[in-house]
Amino acid sequence: MPRPIILGVVGDSAAGKTTITRGLVRLLGEEHVTHIAADDYHRFDRRQRAEHAITPLHPACNYMDIMEQHFREVRAGRPILKPVYRHQDGTFGAPVYVTPRQFTIVEGLLGYHTEALREVFDVRVFLAPLEELRRKWKVDRDCSRRGYTTDQVLEELDRRESDSATFIRPQRRFADIVVCFVPGDHGQFDAEVTLGRGLVHPDLTPFVDGDQRGLTIVDAGTEHTLAISGGIDPGYAATIEEAIWDRMHFASHLRSERLGEFTVGTQLHRSESLALVQLLVLYHLVTARASVALGADGLRVAS
Amino acid sequence: MPRPIILGVVGDSAAGKTTITRGLVRLLGEEHVTHIAADDYHRFDRRQRAEHAITPLHPACNYMDIMEQHFREVRAGRPILKPVYRHQDGTFGAPVYVTPRQFTIVEGLLGYHTEALREVFDVRVFLAPLEELRRKWKVDRDCSRRGYTTDQVLEELDRRESDSATFIRPQRRFADIVVCFVPGDHGQFDAEVTLGRGLVHPDLTPFVDGDQRGLTIVDAGTEHTLAISGGIDPGYAATIEEAIWDRMHFASHLRSERLGEFTVGTQLHRSESLALVQLLVLYHLVTARASVALGADGLRVAS
Repeated sequence: MPRPIILGVVGDSAAGKTTITRGLVRLLGEEHVTHIAADDYHRFDRRQRAEHAITPLHPACNYMDIMEQHFREVRAGRPILKPVYRHQDGTFGAPVYVTPRQFTIVEGLLGYHTEALREVFDVRVFLAPLEELRRKWKVDRDCSRRGYTTDQVLEELDRRESDSATFIRPQRRFADIVVCFVPGDHGQFDAEVTLGRGLVHPDLTPFVDGDQRGLTIVDAGTEHTLAISGGIDPGYAATIEEAIWDRMHFASHLRSERLGEFTVGTQLHRSESLALVQLLVLYHLVTARASVALGADGLRVAS
Repeated sequence: MPRPIILGVVGDSAAGKTTITRGLVRLLGEEHVTHIAADDYHRFDRRQRAEHAITPLHPACNYMDIMEQHFREVRAGRPILKPVYRHQDGTFGAPVYVTPRQFTIVEGLLGYHTEALREVFDVRVFLAPLEELRRKWKVDRDCSRRGYTTDQVLEELDRRESDSATFIRPQRRFADIVVCFVPGDHGQFDAEVTLGRGLVHPDLTPFVDGDQRGLTIVDAGTEHTLAISGGIDPGYAATIEEAIWDRMHFASHLRSERLGEFTVGTQLHRSESLALVQLLVLYHLVTARASVALGADGLRVAS
């Protein structure tokens, strides 16, 4: 079996990592995807972090070397005994045996912090939503699912700000795809997508048409940041999606209507901009898979 | 720093692994020795083993591949996140971060079961005490320290016999030093020591003098199994020890009177035969260390 393809989904707490990932897993098929949360590699449990006054965003609060070791093993197709951090109560459990499948998705805070980590990934996504949006998402999630109060979450966000600025946000420069969600019209989210030089991306500039139908270039000088309007015309979005699928016709058996879904509370929503972002990521995953299956080491462009 | 030197101490349950190890650790200095119990790599906890009717002696009951991976990392001098099996209650705990020191001692049941495992060790010791002696040791230990009754331990020994014969005992042929303790006179233990061809051993044949003073050759045809009487004259034992120390004079700062100690219940005993066995093992550890420090990969002889 060719080695697994490794996707990194890195970003601050509550930046939308799981939302991006979920649709990709659905398309690729759960049975083909191994999922690793880098939070499992925390060095200190919740109590110890409070004692040491250290946030999980600090590299010293994580086993960076073990992460490198394990991810290298996974990339080579070898199983690992993965540690387990339990968000429910902030403690560690017994480790679990994980066999890498065709695709491995690593979600985490510090995935691109060291060069050895960066080298593991075939595709590096970085999520950088507007900070005000991320704070809202974090409050919503941590209160509903991790048992905190709103005030606790807001205090925690303040406590983490310095480490976010020092360790998390600078990682965006290593990403192949930086996604910045910002609130758009009608409660939709616009996505600003910055495409890095480490991979050759599908050319979407033919679809840029000013503000007319929802795809614009943010900085006319560079052409590498596109804005996808949350209110993009669905027919037009379908046309763009079609163009991307054209370039990966060998993967057309994966086509599905289910990209772009996300939940708020228990309610299911759909976002055209999210769907397009997911499809771009999928494009790189399946082309990397094809390349590796044909004997190459992947599609990363030497920088 | 040169890579760590790895000692394997393999043998059936209660074969005396910890007893051999303890004196070595004392001489080398606890601060220079990392200690790994291969039992930590069990795949199933005590309850699951009962459900599956599998003994911990079976390779399928252990993460052999993770053991290989971790021990390779340790040999390369890299830290691991080691799983933790708790003998007190037979469950797994959170893993611990282990940094390999100058020497790493791996104690376990199946250390030489695969070639990849065997290749990790600079020195391979296998303990094969007379079965009747081992059964007694196991009853004593498991009743006093692991909360079993005598009947439970005896039943467990019967249940394990087939796996012992199939998986544990055959590993002796891969060892550099096989130690078989047998009951001798006056409550002492005689040690039959078989020296393998994978390492060049100190030549003790000049000290063989029939039955006179305690060192004999077991099989006159081969000369590679020596019997050290538990009742060996202490002065003569000291002479032999001196000859071994002579060959590792560069390590004379490690000399100590404390080899050969063992406890029965809470009482401390001393055994000349145990001390000589430990010194033989120490010889190989410090010469391997010297060799690696000088840029070689160790002292193992290609077979």
